[in-house]
Amino acid sequence: MPLPERTAAFLHKAVGPGVPIREGHDSDARVAHQGPRGMAWHDLCDVRMGVDDPLLVDVVFPESLDDVVAAIRRAEQQGRAVIPRGGGTSVVGGLTAADPSTIIDMTHMNHILDWSPSDGVVHVQSGVTGPQLEQWLHERGYMFGHLPQSWEQATLGGYAVTSSAGQVSSGVGRFHDNVVQVTLATPHGVWTIGHNPATAMGPDFMGVVRASEGTLGIVSDLVLRIRPRPSRIHSEGALSPTWQAAINAARDLAHAGLTPHVLRISDQEETRGTWAMSFPAGIKGSLVNAYCAMRGVSDGCLVIMQWQGGSELPAKRRAAWKILNSHGIVRLGRGVGRSWEKHRFAGPYLRDSLIDAGYFVETFETATSWTQLAHARETVMEEVARLDARVYAMTHISHVYATGASLYFTILAPSTFGEHWSEVKTHLTDAIVSSGGTATHHHGVGTVHAPWLRQELGEQGMDVWRAIKGSCDPEGIMNPAVWRAWQR
Amino acid sequence: MPLPERTAAFLHKAVGPGVPIREGHDSDARVAHQGPRGMAWHDLCDVRMGVDDPLLVDVVFPESLDDVVAAIRRAEQQGRAVIPRGGGTSVVGGLTAADPSTIIDMTHMNHILDWSPSDGVVHVQSGVTGPQLEQWLHERGYMFGHLPQSWEQATLGGYAVTSSAGQVSSGVGRFHDNVVQVTLATPHGVWTIGHNPATAMGPDFMGVVRASEGTLGIVSDLVLRIRPRPSRIHSEGALSPTWQAAINAARDLAHAGLTPHVLRISDQEETRGTWAMSFPAGIKGSLVNAYCAMRGVSDGCLVIMQWQGGSELPAKRRAAWKILNSHGIVRLGRGVGRSWEKHRFAGPYLRDSLIDAGYFVETFETATSWTQLAHARETVMEEVARLDARVYAMTHISHVYATGASLYFTILAPSTFGEHWSEVKTHLTDAIVSSGGTATHHHGVGTVHAPWLRQELGEQGMDVWRAIKGSCDPEGIMNPAVWRAWQR
Repeated sequence: MPLPERTAAFLHKAVGPGVPIREGHDSDARVAHQGPRGMAWHDLCDVRMGVDDPLLVDVVFPESLDDVVAAIRRAEQQGRAVIPRGGGTSVVGGLTAADPSTIIDMTHMNHILDWSPSDGVVHVQSGVTGPQLEQWLHERGYMFGHLPQSWEQATLGGYAVTSSAGQVSSGVGRFHDNVVQVTLATPHGVWTIGHNPATAMGPDFMGVVRASEGTLGIVSDLVLRIRPRPSRIHSEGALSPTWQAAINAARDLAHAGLTPHVLRISDQEETRGTWAMSFPAGIKGSLVNAYCAMRGVSDGCLVIMQWQGGSELPAKRRAAWKILNSHGIVRLGRGVGRSWEKHRFAGPYLRDSLIDAGYFVETFETATSWTQLAHARETVMEEVARLDARVYAMTHISHVYATGASLYFTILAPSTFGEHWSEVKTHLTDAIVSSGGTATHHHGVGTVHAPWLRQELGEQGMDVWRAIKGSCDPEGIMNPAVWRAWQR
Repeated sequence: MPLPERTAAFLHKAVGPGVPIREGHDSDARVAHQGPRGMAWHDLCDVRMGVDDPLLVDVVFPESLDDVVAAIRRAEQQGRAVIPRGGGTSVVGGLTAADPSTIIDMTHMNHILDWSPSDGVVHVQSGVTGPQLEQWLHERGYMFGHLPQSWEQATLGGYAVTSSAGQVSSGVGRFHDNVVQVTLATPHGVWTIGHNPATAMGPDFMGVVRASEGTLGIVSDLVLRIRPRPSRIHSEGALSPTWQAAINAARDLAHAGLTPHVLRISDQEETRGTWAMSFPAGIKGSLVNAYCAMRGVSDGCLVIMQWQGGSELPAKRRAAWKILNSHGIVRLGRGVGRSWEKHRFAGPYLRDSLIDAGYFVETFETATSWTQLAHARETVMEEVARLDARVYAMTHISHVYATGASLYFTILAPSTFGEHWSEVKTHLTDAIVSSGGTATHHHGVGTVHAPWLRQELGEQGMDVWRAIKGSCDPEGIMNPAVWRAWQR
């Protein structure tokens, strides 16, 4: 399957050719006209087909907490629902209208308010994007380090309410692990959560807010943990003879407290795809193949690692490589690591090019315990194989925990496959959940994963969730399409 | 002030001389007779004075989740409140009766149900104690690693609902960071929380359960994260020339990702007290003093560190010591570290001996940001000095985070001082909160810290908390003395 080049910015395409979303009032009108859209398959199709959403009434751009509170109040008075919008990168239908709605677009709240390098914190408005924050911090010798593939567009407020995880989460934790304080404007009042650095004074409600997806309120600002930039960053590639060997090695690294900041393990299918993309001219590809065959790992699994730290890092890598070697994993060196660094945010763009070229492309993910990981992947791959012979599926492990890891699946198929995607997605998610996985590790619930929420939270969990909603949003105006989907 | 020797088991004293709590039915009757008691100053006084609690009706000892559910239902039918009891080590009035009550004593639910070393988890009943779990795991080459000073008596279920933190929490995380799954029997239904290893499917309610302190339901069993025992454990002492230098060093270690598993920093007052206790005969104490004077750190601050890891540990320690040295901190070696290891659980026993010897002893704690830490300690020490010239107060940092740390205060005074403790405690907690600290970092809220809960959670937080309570315990039978104190 030939893979086209990376194309122009994905977001421009997502809202239609030639209509950038962030430039002046035309874009506001355009958003208003096209309706609230994320980047799920159905969103992209709607946008490409110019499907209108009559439920979207207006778009407001607050600049302060007071503006957000006023905008929510106004919507309430006018009998409209509120749909909060950050970067618009939801891939799970998180931006969907069910009632006449106001979009509260947070992208004008993009100021960095304060910071304290001594305390290791920065205070930001929620419409700040990852690149903006990282650039500001890098100039001052610090970093934040949350790098999901939506990084170029998504906002910090969006991360805070969608259980976001990024490429370096194995090292720095998930987004919510780095939230020191968050301020949420709910229809019922302003809610500030968090005590620096820790407390036993009552519940930690961050675990609730982090999954609220716009249904409780709107994040206006956050205090985030920052870190001094590490003096050493070492990215490298490796090859595992088998998928199971790579799983075992990752588990042993995690148990020994030696997980690298990034640990990404591709299965054989994804590894083949990566070689095909990286070395299209043939000659370099042949060399890699020859080297791998020589090391006894031809048709193996690609392992990408990034290590961050100081003078202790070489000793840590040595200890980790003892474990990696004991599982038959061999080094591919820093070149492969650098190649990954260069292309790490290319996925969404590539997807866009492929869609334009007539392909269906979608991703989905899960997480499960170490002992269930191989079984969960196999279950999904078998189901995919049964669907359609023309479907190419591949998997990688993207986030590693002490007690298990995530699995990230990518599906490529002819675009006609997309017509049945909704049913196929249901079928595959059922397979994931029945194999012991969760319906989503980091994409969020949205409308797409709503049917599995009750199963995962249980009746008492759903009841508590409804009680919290009732306290924050008694009239039910916040992101109602998503909330109602959760209650079915 | 002369400090007596460590005496016999503290718990025996807490429930009256010669009446061990865990041996047969006499103890049940005794608990029933004496009322629900923890180990706060007021509890110990009541026990010593033989104060009876007529509100305590009976004590039941469930052996399974079904037993717990049945016991809650029976109490409900009989119009009684339920007070869950684990090890009875609450120091914040968490065991207090307000209505005719049944104590559900969890100590018979002390079985280890299952484990998976590959997944790195163990499944336990909630009445298991720390020593029981650690011994079981150690025999199999694993550890859990939650070691608060209540470790010898407290139960895992108690840790799970009181935001517990232990001596090694800087390294392995707080208790709730190591909970993979928890099952809570609420009056409204059984609630299972958690997906291994992580999920974006809805809220993480562990942050709610971990602060519930028996007001939502009773933990019947938990799945906990375990770790292989480290091949190297290195405990050592060090001396910092000043309190501020030690704070700065701890902050830099945390920011560099080089925090040891244990990092305990005593202020000058506590350091003097430690020397006095460790070297009562004079000669060794003189040697230490001479050495410290030679190194320019006489009257400095004692730093205790414990490092855990594998072959990478020496390099990590070297990198950390570069930072420690840059702040003027000097080595005291492994002997001091071993001495700390030996006496690490002696605090509560020592307290008991001191009380018997006519002293008042109480501890309280807080946490705040790095930049507020010195100010918070100073505020408290100044307030204490103003109270009574005969009071000896000392402080240590016990838990270190990236963005701040905890402060642990100990007060010694003649026992007459205890008569005013309730007012003094209010005064000191006001001082802590006004200096930017939290009213408790790890002791929990209970009845003692209840007056500050609203201030820390805010109105919207309190409202959400009540909504959750309403869902789990609509009749309000669970630990009502504590819950009502929180609502005032």
